[in-house]
Amino acid sequence: MALTLYFAPGASSLAPLAALEEAGADYNGVRLVLADQDQRRPEFLSISPRGRVPVLVADGQVITENVAILTAIAHRYPDVSLLPLEAPSLLARAYELIGWFASGVHIAFAEVFRPERFTDDDTAKAALKQGGRRNVLLAFDEIEAILRDSPSGWLVGDRFTAVDPYALVFWRWAERLEIDTADYPAFTRHARRLFDRPAVQRAVARETGKAPVGAD
Amino acid sequence: MALTLYFAPGASSLAPLAALEEAGADYNGVRLVLADQDQRRPEFLSISPRGRVPVLVADGQVITENVAILTAIAHRYPDVSLLPLEAPSLLARAYELIGWFASGVHIAFAEVFRPERFTDDDTAKAALKQGGRRNVLLAFDEIEAILRDSPSGWLVGDRFTAVDPYALVFWRWAERLEIDTADYPAFTRHARRLFDRPAVQRAVARETGKAPVGAD
Repeated sequence: MALTLYFAPGASSLAPLAALEEAGADYNGVRLVLADQDQRRPEFLSISPRGRVPVLVADGQVITENVAILTAIAHRYPDVSLLPLEAPSLLARAYELIGWFASGVHIAFAEVFRPERFTDDDTAKAALKQGGRRNVLLAFDEIEAILRDSPSGWLVGDRFTAVDPYALVFWRWAERLEIDTADYPAFTRHARRLFDRPAVQRAVARETGKAPVGAD
Repeated sequence: MALTLYFAPGASSLAPLAALEEAGADYNGVRLVLADQDQRRPEFLSISPRGRVPVLVADGQVITENVAILTAIAHRYPDVSLLPLEAPSLLARAYELIGWFASGVHIAFAEVFRPERFTDDDTAKAALKQGGRRNVLLAFDEIEAILRDSPSGWLVGDRFTAVDPYALVFWRWAERLEIDTADYPAFTRHARRLFDRPAVQRAVARETGKAPVGAD
């Protein structure tokens, strides 16, 4: 029943970190600092050759990609309903959002934060940062509309799911693009509501390193 | 129980099209020709504002993103085991690959095919095409290694899953990048094995428009 999450402060690993905390999971956390290039160290690359967080190691199985990690956590703690596993139409909606977050919204931010993933050309990197910002703003408009139109204020159905803290990752990244989150009131209300949850607070504390990881 | 798939010849919609055929599903198919800009027509944009295929409409619910569409089909036809829904560790592996295909491999091809998604700058678009090709080759090396190391020759576990025809999408796209698939023998063996399956043949026939869609 061993469970280890490799995460980094400020990364998209906040989503599974929050999911584990919501589940009250007994897990080890390994904190990587991306600015220190921890993700390039041989000991991490031997686990995750692409050098990306999050990585979940569950009973020896190395799992990458948030969609897979969130699925694994949700199946491990079915009573917590981190994903609506018993409601096919809600589950499809959850995966639709997770899929778009990973292949759309995250990619838009990656254009800005990691243009070298797309090209080696320095001039093109500057253009990518601009294009990424454009794509982030379009995505934020979509997220704002989804949350504004949600009667519950949650992204999927009428309760919290693991999709919600995944959106929080992007809300936090807005600051790095100097996007004013006040322009997105429903998204900001959603973020505040998440930050009010004790499990999300514990996840953030683990990110900062103020909470001992794997020691409580 | 109404099921409609919007697909386009040559697009990543081959994956759900093959999944529906494998399931023996009773579905309507709507064939869009991307070269004719069918995906930009108001009647399609009213269903899918991002103008992308595939889209599955299941009992009135519009579902985008392959991860969600394949999940919805797999849950609808559980006896066919399109995803290993009852085996959590295999399911995590399936979602890991689907997630990587969508946010990694597909994005690499999109740099080449659709650089305008990333930037408006024409000079940068040329650089993106080069960077995308580099990323596709890296991805093909990974897929080749996965299939070479798979005792069953399938991507997940010891049998066909919906993840397999998703990989076939990329194998077909190699030609458009003038990548010689002979350099990837395990990947090519996997593709040939898929093309030998009657359901995949039916999916390809529907793509070509030679098979009447929604009329049988």
